[in-house]
Amino acid sequence: MTKDKNTMEKIVSLCKRRGFVFQGSEIYGGFVGLYDFGPYGVELANNIRAAWWKAMVQEERNIVGLDSAIITHPKVWEASGHVGGFSDPLVECKECNTRSRADHLLEEVGMFADEKMTAEEINTVFDAQREKMTCPKCGQKNFGEVKHFNLLVQSNLGNFSNDWTKEPTYLRGETCQGIYLNFKNVLDSSRVKVPFGIAQIGKAFRNEIAPRQYIFRKREFEQMEMQMFVSPDAELVEYEKWKAKRWQYYIDLGFKEENLKWHEHENLVFYAKAAWDIEYNFPFGFKELEGIHARGNYDLTQHQTFSGKDLSYLDPVTNERYVPHVVETSVGLDRTFLAVMTEFYDEDELGGETRTVLRFPKALAPIKVAVFPLLKNKPELVAKAEEVYSLLAKEMRAEFDDNGNIGKRYRRQDEIGTPACVTIDFETLGQEDASLKDTVTVRDRDTGEQARIHISELVAYLKK
Amino acid sequence: MTKDKNTMEKIVSLCKRRGFVFQGSEIYGGFVGLYDFGPYGVELANNIRAAWWKAMVQEERNIVGLDSAIITHPKVWEASGHVGGFSDPLVECKECNTRSRADHLLEEVGMFADEKMTAEEINTVFDAQREKMTCPKCGQKNFGEVKHFNLLVQSNLGNFSNDWTKEPTYLRGETCQGIYLNFKNVLDSSRVKVPFGIAQIGKAFRNEIAPRQYIFRKREFEQMEMQMFVSPDAELVEYEKWKAKRWQYYIDLGFKEENLKWHEHENLVFYAKAAWDIEYNFPFGFKELEGIHARGNYDLTQHQTFSGKDLSYLDPVTNERYVPHVVETSVGLDRTFLAVMTEFYDEDELGGETRTVLRFPKALAPIKVAVFPLLKNKPELVAKAEEVYSLLAKEMRAEFDDNGNIGKRYRRQDEIGTPACVTIDFETLGQEDASLKDTVTVRDRDTGEQARIHISELVAYLKK
Repeated sequence: MTKDKNTMEKIVSLCKRRGFVFQGSEIYGGFVGLYDFGPYGVELANNIRAAWWKAMVQEERNIVGLDSAIITHPKVWEASGHVGGFSDPLVECKECNTRSRADHLLEEVGMFADEKMTAEEINTVFDAQREKMTCPKCGQKNFGEVKHFNLLVQSNLGNFSNDWTKEPTYLRGETCQGIYLNFKNVLDSSRVKVPFGIAQIGKAFRNEIAPRQYIFRKREFEQMEMQMFVSPDAELVEYEKWKAKRWQYYIDLGFKEENLKWHEHENLVFYAKAAWDIEYNFPFGFKELEGIHARGNYDLTQHQTFSGKDLSYLDPVTNERYVPHVVETSVGLDRTFLAVMTEFYDEDELGGETRTVLRFPKALAPIKVAVFPLLKNKPELVAKAEEVYSLLAKEMRAEFDDNGNIGKRYRRQDEIGTPACVTIDFETLGQEDASLKDTVTVRDRDTGEQARIHISELVAYLKK
Repeated sequence: MTKDKNTMEKIVSLCKRRGFVFQGSEIYGGFVGLYDFGPYGVELANNIRAAWWKAMVQEERNIVGLDSAIITHPKVWEASGHVGGFSDPLVECKECNTRSRADHLLEEVGMFADEKMTAEEINTVFDAQREKMTCPKCGQKNFGEVKHFNLLVQSNLGNFSNDWTKEPTYLRGETCQGIYLNFKNVLDSSRVKVPFGIAQIGKAFRNEIAPRQYIFRKREFEQMEMQMFVSPDAELVEYEKWKAKRWQYYIDLGFKEENLKWHEHENLVFYAKAAWDIEYNFPFGFKELEGIHARGNYDLTQHQTFSGKDLSYLDPVTNERYVPHVVETSVGLDRTFLAVMTEFYDEDELGGETRTVLRFPKALAPIKVAVFPLLKNKPELVAKAEEVYSLLAKEMRAEFDDNGNIGKRYRRQDEIGTPACVTIDFETLGQEDASLKDTVTVRDRDTGEQARIHISELVAYLKK
């Protein structure tokens, strides 16, 4: 099926209706840019994290994991350049006080505001277009001056004075800084040798002026990042290797190749050697899913300067000393979540009925199997179904449902992407044909086909 | 072995040396109350999270998961009572400006400061003891006045004004509020019926004045909480059920019963029906590991009042409408981590040598198996070992090590708690005895005993 803005609405609606994603603080009227994962959402998110960890840590001999704190010493963000330069151009409507991003308003009238422009430069461009741009809230054209607004979120953790905003601590704006901070610790404790990588999954925070596109751009979001530390000579070879690996990762996850696209960055920061994004075909078009960057040794050098600690590496073979270069792969968990929802969302006809189905690969499915007694009001069916449920729940995420007719229960499991449904019927009890005693019906989500499986073989059948 | 302050030092040292736990922002001189999990620490933490999720969500038919945002609408923390009353008594040394907790200073001279005391009351008690109490930093007795300091961490997320401290957003001080916020969403989307539970694992933040005891009391920490929503009549029965279940959980995890102790809260908050802690025998004594609380319907009622949304439940059988009562189980991931390190830390003698060994149960062990080529300089051994490593790494967290003599490699794996070590030797290559071709040595961590296993049976052998 073609996926467009209409599909986006359907996905957002399904996510709320079936408990994948809720608006943050919804009962208090919500909070822009914040979302909560509901019962099926948290399972899907956990499975996405596990798939990434398996590919990036478990199956990579020279990559180790890390889980660093969200809050760090404030100097970290001076060294990284975020305190000085991590900002978006903000403009306020003088009529309704709505704040918008000046670069987004310019984009809509076909102009381009470079990230590196000074406030003065961007105001010049902005002033020339004032007549064309309108406030997205009130429709007026009365904007104030463009100002740079820093995206780092400030906090008072560890600061007990009254005027703590003078010396705030920051919530991390990206997870990779925690990796740089621990480069030496990992080197000293894990007996790794360059080239080696450190991988991390964790929350990051950005004070986005205008979060957009559902969970695509949140203020509190989650990153899955890996930094590979390499010798200066090896950087570009390693870079190409990771470009290939990360593309293949999405294919292995079950994504169609036509929904992925490479995008090369037009304006590289001065220290970067190469930067490409993998874009995904979201319902609102191809947008960045993952970034793969050759970052030189800028980050470690900055932390070396600001911390005064030696972050160089002595190659045990060549006896050469250098500050390692970094190849980074960085992807958002929330964006992956939305890409997965988009990729596997489908509508088809089964048994003469239209249905919505999430065709998740088994590893990603929130619920692996649902167990149904055929009828709710037959205690012997219910008891047997509970027994089968307990057997399965020890081995995998299972769900019990005795509510409504079987067809409805199938539809519901299709909508949350459960690969298999097990029904306990009278044949399971051996009441009609003794040879069928202790067998159950296993119905396949994608084909609707049913197989008769003995309970003793059920776990193995469902796992294969 | 007896575990005391000496053991604590050994655990802290092992955690740093082997990459379980690093001080937060260490290269910048550290940051009090923040820690990072290193390569083995993140694996252990992930395994602890997975064990809790399996017991509390996967194997509990009427509990579902949730992953709500760290930052919420600020009204949430007014409703919960944290903005008004979540504070510690802070006192500053006039000599060296060190801030201490007044209640901790009083404790050391045998006095008790109740949580509910007003600033005036605590100052009266404090003044009477001034002569006895000294600053832990400079040793002087020149303290200022005791003031209440709010533990909620403030931030400017979503607030773009300059004087945002007047309307801060808060980093959650506990994860359970996110559960209350989503009670209605879960009810409406998941077809659960009371009694049902919502479980969540996530970060929380508290501006602790004086974090202590390593990772036991951090400023950024992680909670694993479950809120069971029940009818008013069922609260105390459900409470007793969860007391029993949560005790058994630690036994199932492999904890010795003698290292666990019940502690009943002396001063219940006015809405609570019962509150007991499970205490663990940490190297610094029995301290709270988990809290199990019967909280009445205080939290939902508060959110109903502050949000203006109806949070009542209509029982489909009795047709009775009520605001559900809550039974909560709440445990710290970091405290569990430290309890697990303490419980399974051991020193013994094996083959005439003293060794340190972490006797982790298999489910918790950061690395499930280590693979060694007997000799590093024999390419055919290394190639075969790499082949075996790749086979195992697809199935479980494995590590490859070709460095140093085998004895040393065993010691290292014992120190990180790896249950099994696989060695590829000349017999594996079939050079000495053709019948032993493709068999490997599997050495058991606890007994040091070795078994000869065929490679084709290795995965099954290690998984059982």
